[in-house]
Amino acid sequence: MHPVGRPDANDPGLLDAAEVSLFCDLYELTMAASYHREGLDGVAVFELFARRLPPNRSWLLAAGIGPTLRLVSEMRFGDTELEYLRELGFAEEFLDYLSAFRFSGDVAAMPEGTVCFADEPLVRVTGPRIEAQLLETLLLNQVNFQTMIATKAARVVLAAGGGELGGGEKVIDFSPRRDHGIDAAMKVARCAAICGCAGTSNVAAAKRYGLEPMGTMAHSYVLSFPGELEAFTAFLRAFPQRAVLLVDTFQIEDGVRNAIEAARATGAALQGVRIDSGDHERCARVARGLLDEAEMQATEIIVSGDLEETRIAELVAAGAPIDRFGVGTDLGTSRDSPVVNGVYKLVADARPDGSWRGVRKLSADKETLPGPKQVFRRTRDGRLAGDTVVPDGEAAEGEPLLVPFMESGEIVRSETIEQIQGRVDAGLGTLTAELRSLNPKGGAAYPVEISPRLRDPAG
Amino acid sequence: MHPVGRPDANDPGLLDAAEVSLFCDLYELTMAASYHREGLDGVAVFELFARRLPPNRSWLLAAGIGPTLRLVSEMRFGDTELEYLRELGFAEEFLDYLSAFRFSGDVAAMPEGTVCFADEPLVRVTGPRIEAQLLETLLLNQVNFQTMIATKAARVVLAAGGGELGGGEKVIDFSPRRDHGIDAAMKVARCAAICGCAGTSNVAAAKRYGLEPMGTMAHSYVLSFPGELEAFTAFLRAFPQRAVLLVDTFQIEDGVRNAIEAARATGAALQGVRIDSGDHERCARVARGLLDEAEMQATEIIVSGDLEETRIAELVAAGAPIDRFGVGTDLGTSRDSPVVNGVYKLVADARPDGSWRGVRKLSADKETLPGPKQVFRRTRDGRLAGDTVVPDGEAAEGEPLLVPFMESGEIVRSETIEQIQGRVDAGLGTLTAELRSLNPKGGAAYPVEISPRLRDPAG
Repeated sequence: MHPVGRPDANDPGLLDAAEVSLFCDLYELTMAASYHREGLDGVAVFELFARRLPPNRSWLLAAGIGPTLRLVSEMRFGDTELEYLRELGFAEEFLDYLSAFRFSGDVAAMPEGTVCFADEPLVRVTGPRIEAQLLETLLLNQVNFQTMIATKAARVVLAAGGGELGGGEKVIDFSPRRDHGIDAAMKVARCAAICGCAGTSNVAAAKRYGLEPMGTMAHSYVLSFPGELEAFTAFLRAFPQRAVLLVDTFQIEDGVRNAIEAARATGAALQGVRIDSGDHERCARVARGLLDEAEMQATEIIVSGDLEETRIAELVAAGAPIDRFGVGTDLGTSRDSPVVNGVYKLVADARPDGSWRGVRKLSADKETLPGPKQVFRRTRDGRLAGDTVVPDGEAAEGEPLLVPFMESGEIVRSETIEQIQGRVDAGLGTLTAELRSLNPKGGAAYPVEISPRLRDPAG
Repeated sequence: MHPVGRPDANDPGLLDAAEVSLFCDLYELTMAASYHREGLDGVAVFELFARRLPPNRSWLLAAGIGPTLRLVSEMRFGDTELEYLRELGFAEEFLDYLSAFRFSGDVAAMPEGTVCFADEPLVRVTGPRIEAQLLETLLLNQVNFQTMIATKAARVVLAAGGGELGGGEKVIDFSPRRDHGIDAAMKVARCAAICGCAGTSNVAAAKRYGLEPMGTMAHSYVLSFPGELEAFTAFLRAFPQRAVLLVDTFQIEDGVRNAIEAARATGAALQGVRIDSGDHERCARVARGLLDEAEMQATEIIVSGDLEETRIAELVAAGAPIDRFGVGTDLGTSRDSPVVNGVYKLVADARPDGSWRGVRKLSADKETLPGPKQVFRRTRDGRLAGDTVVPDGEAAEGEPLLVPFMESGEIVRSETIEQIQGRVDAGLGTLTAELRSLNPKGGAAYPVEISPRLRDPAG
């Protein structure tokens, strides 16, 4: 196998929807080609789940299925893609099959914003084996990442709310410069929004997802004028209604005084001041004091600079007069836990009579549970009380978490950011105090019971 | 400011080159609007650099400038983008300016694959202030991330080579399922390639960048047949010349024996066997023994499963008979150090006479050095001996590291993967034993001297 096509080392590498069909691991195509050759394309079931929770996490917030299924529904192999595969040596019969490919199966999933745990399927794909196999990398790449970021965003929002709901209004996504690429930045903004964050600095994401674009100014702006007062005055001239002035380029007290003076001189409303360095609590108190003294109680204080949920919780607990937290690096990379180890596993084959043959893998430490599954969740007094993973179709106490998202290749469930955000609020509201803790001792204490019928299936 | 446009919560969020103009933080646009209003658009200089090396790193490998400058050169504000900005309240005069925008400045940068350190500019942008300001987020998002991944890939390659060069042939990028989105996965494959990795499982990236696509099979494939032998036989029928069989679905010895038997029965060449679980060293020895006994010395042993550079170095040091390492999660996320904290700072304004006014920021712990800079590197006996950061235009001992990449908005330097890979090899070859260590004590011991003229500029 040798490089073919017209490779360009400096190509920006941005894929459009039509090119996403090749966004897979090679083995999906080679396995699919073999299945095609062997006529092995009966209906099979694959499930996406995490075997273990990531370090420092006692739950996850499922995310990403909505935009990902849009890509799945649009997945086609165009001439360029087929030509590339031909040059790689794939058989013509298989290329013919791919040329007519469209996903025709069913997808059930936990709706975005659902609190979830290890061993629970987040996504269940039922369809012809080849089709279901070809989705593996796309689903894992998108759902693993977005689940990780939504989880992080939820932790930040809980911290900003002092452990209670409603903290999202205080959080702004400032992450694009540290996110792992452009796609990551778009999805981080979306994940922040579904967790209730107030806005994002990412203009492209704000446009695409209907989010509130938010921003202030950089130190370079202040340094582009003869002095801070001139810089602030110029900015207020351009944005008299919504200027947030960065007050720490030189010295914080002078910065705040200059901001007040510039607002008075221009008659502009000073929406806020931002503090990006130093001791956030002390600086916020200084700024609040000066602003209140100037009768600018409505002017907000925004802090930024390597903030993560533990530091935010400390600032909130200390009663620091901070209205907004601009959170960048840690929100966008989940720095303390940058991986969700979701896997996508074959769990069942359809039998000719329509029943399932459970498929079980026995590799060391990587056993999987056979059969299509459903997860039921119980609550008690409004708090999570336990989940049970059962064979799909069996009843159990509680509410089933996986619901249909695609049927015969058609998307049947599509949610708005607001709907998802409502689910996040409701779900975070059901977390027990222990689960809500940012640093839970001993990891996941939450009971996820596996039905004995899955451990030792009769069928 | 309120959400406008036609937002779609389930949009896949893939941007094309034309949409990248809005991939910025809002403040770049508000600052630019104010600069435009104030007529403040003289030539300025911005530099991208890291104030500190990330944890667990004693050097970085610069990467990403090539594909990023392609995006910069294509950056335009189309009707949709302008309409969105209009609805956000930007002034018509500024929108007129943006409608004619194209970057017209100069960019100097360390070529991709250059070993670099804290305080050293990786990229220097010289151009009209508004233009240079608008590149901030795109440059940071792409260069921070790709520099981080190239650094990780170099560490993995060094580990695979037992601390010496040439280890790349043993490394395959298996990361797409854990990378932070699609753009990340495309760039991880490219970064792995510039570090000499043999190939990638990512078919889209292999096509785009002319890389070697590589893959094996999944456990689900084996489980799709009545038994392992039938599965292996079917795969060898489809790919008689390049089959890598996954031998750990059940029991490793049986797996290898079945692989041998299937190869003999089909007359196929068995390219390799993959081990994805258990004790890699023990399993590799078992597999090698059985393969050698069967006179299949050419059959490769590929291992995968949560491999990172420290574990790879241990396996190499132990003499485990492993031909290839499939590295996923850690290569693609730089899990132990998932952030490069690069910043983009204004460092100088052009004076009317063509000289520079250095711009210096004094915020607590975030001081920047004024003036356009160059980095000179000295070597001694073929090893790195020290760098000096000096005002651009001044001479110093050694070789200058920043070279022109764009002039008046035109790309003037464009490198192939092979060229970059040659630079990586040469650069890693100059690392001292201490820098080459995967766990250097005390972090960066490498001397980066800052010219006194930068600390206390006369001009």
